[in-house]
Amino acid sequence: MRNIKLIIEYDGTNYLGWQKQNNGITIQETIEEALKDITKEKINLIGSSRTDSGVHAKGFVANFKTNSRIPSERFREALNVKLPNDIVILESSEVEDDFHSRYNAKGKTYSYTILNRDVPIAIGKDYSYQVKGKLDIEEMKKACSYFIGTHDFVAFKSSGSSVKTTVRTITDLHIENYDSYIKIFVTGDGFLYNMVRIIVGTLLVVGRGKIRSSDIKSIIENKARDKAGICVPSRGLVLEKVFYKN
Amino acid sequence: MRNIKLIIEYDGTNYLGWQKQNNGITIQETIEEALKDITKEKINLIGSSRTDSGVHAKGFVANFKTNSRIPSERFREALNVKLPNDIVILESSEVEDDFHSRYNAKGKTYSYTILNRDVPIAIGKDYSYQVKGKLDIEEMKKACSYFIGTHDFVAFKSSGSSVKTTVRTITDLHIENYDSYIKIFVTGDGFLYNMVRIIVGTLLVVGRGKIRSSDIKSIIENKARDKAGICVPSRGLVLEKVFYKN
Repeated sequence: MRNIKLIIEYDGTNYLGWQKQNNGITIQETIEEALKDITKEKINLIGSSRTDSGVHAKGFVANFKTNSRIPSERFREALNVKLPNDIVILESSEVEDDFHSRYNAKGKTYSYTILNRDVPIAIGKDYSYQVKGKLDIEEMKKACSYFIGTHDFVAFKSSGSSVKTTVRTITDLHIENYDSYIKIFVTGDGFLYNMVRIIVGTLLVVGRGKIRSSDIKSIIENKARDKAGICVPSRGLVLEKVFYKN
Repeated sequence: MRNIKLIIEYDGTNYLGWQKQNNGITIQETIEEALKDITKEKINLIGSSRTDSGVHAKGFVANFKTNSRIPSERFREALNVKLPNDIVILESSEVEDDFHSRYNAKGKTYSYTILNRDVPIAIGKDYSYQVKGKLDIEEMKKACSYFIGTHDFVAFKSSGSSVKTTVRTITDLHIENYDSYIKIFVTGDGFLYNMVRIIVGTLLVVGRGKIRSSDIKSIIENKARDKAGICVPSRGLVLEKVFYKN
């Protein structure tokens, strides 16, 4: 069988996340349905991540096996005709048989967008999280450095997921700000359940002056989930890119 | 009577533009209705511009006269409670009796966002215009300089509006690009009907290599509407700011 890799952009607003479930429509099943129409096969689409309800993606990666003889690059066009407007295939290509979009992923970059102002958001409500009150952005930028490196991030994980280890490596965490927007970028080899959203929540605790940037060190060391911040809403989160070897 | 100035952000996607009309819901009437609820008066809200259907605003200015004794800054909160989520009052303040948001406007800045790629847009469809094929962005940047200055911009105006003069002054026109996004900013003392969208359409003709940047000069001089570009869709357009004396 051939192994086809997809790079996918989607607006997660109207979906219950990536993974198939009984409660409502997901990205995975929507694309699988379209693939079934195209290939006349029952397709199992393997995703690089299990993004939550409302999370968006600009570079989600997935792969599937097929006996179809459709040229690999034609899957992109054929899928984009069938898919709703909020899911778009950016690229389709044939990859080696053993490529697995989740197991082979070496790292991911997420972004999170905050609108820091007291009045609500009219434009782009589904893509940013409004935070009221003045934030100390310089202190938040300092705090970023304490997350970088290999640490046990158990303090930055929601319960309800089982993993072998809670040790992860963050290779980059930085903040870009313009007007009232604060955009946080984080890259790592993998992320625990809600880890990015809790890191953002913790940066907000720093920004409000409730803890100092240097306190991040002890929160990580002491595994102090109660000292870390809240899990901020999903709508500000975008899976920007998934990295593979080479 | 008191004169109250509002600064307004709105997502124009679901409105037939600013100005009241019989065909559907507009921003003006939506805010006037909310003001009527608050003041118990019939309010005539004067807008700085007549933005078209689908155009957005981050800094639209409007003003109205009222006998209400509500503190001026409270109008912001009271209106935001009543207004739908896609219209937000950023500021409300009392201004001098003779302030008129349209007649006193000294200039405006608009932005226009293009997504230059071959695949459709999944995220933020309502805020950008997709353009396929490679664009020569450097040549588009060069073309900007030919628009700057005081010119008769009759070649960059849709029919269906009557104005005393088609001479306008553009003080700034520049392009910022990142990833596949091309963002065009234009500032001038005023704009003819669809002028910003036709300027963008003309920059796209340059970007596609069909005319050179220096051809802009003769299009302006020869009032050659047929040589200028199309009026690009409204959804990429944002009224960023309105300028007044002081």
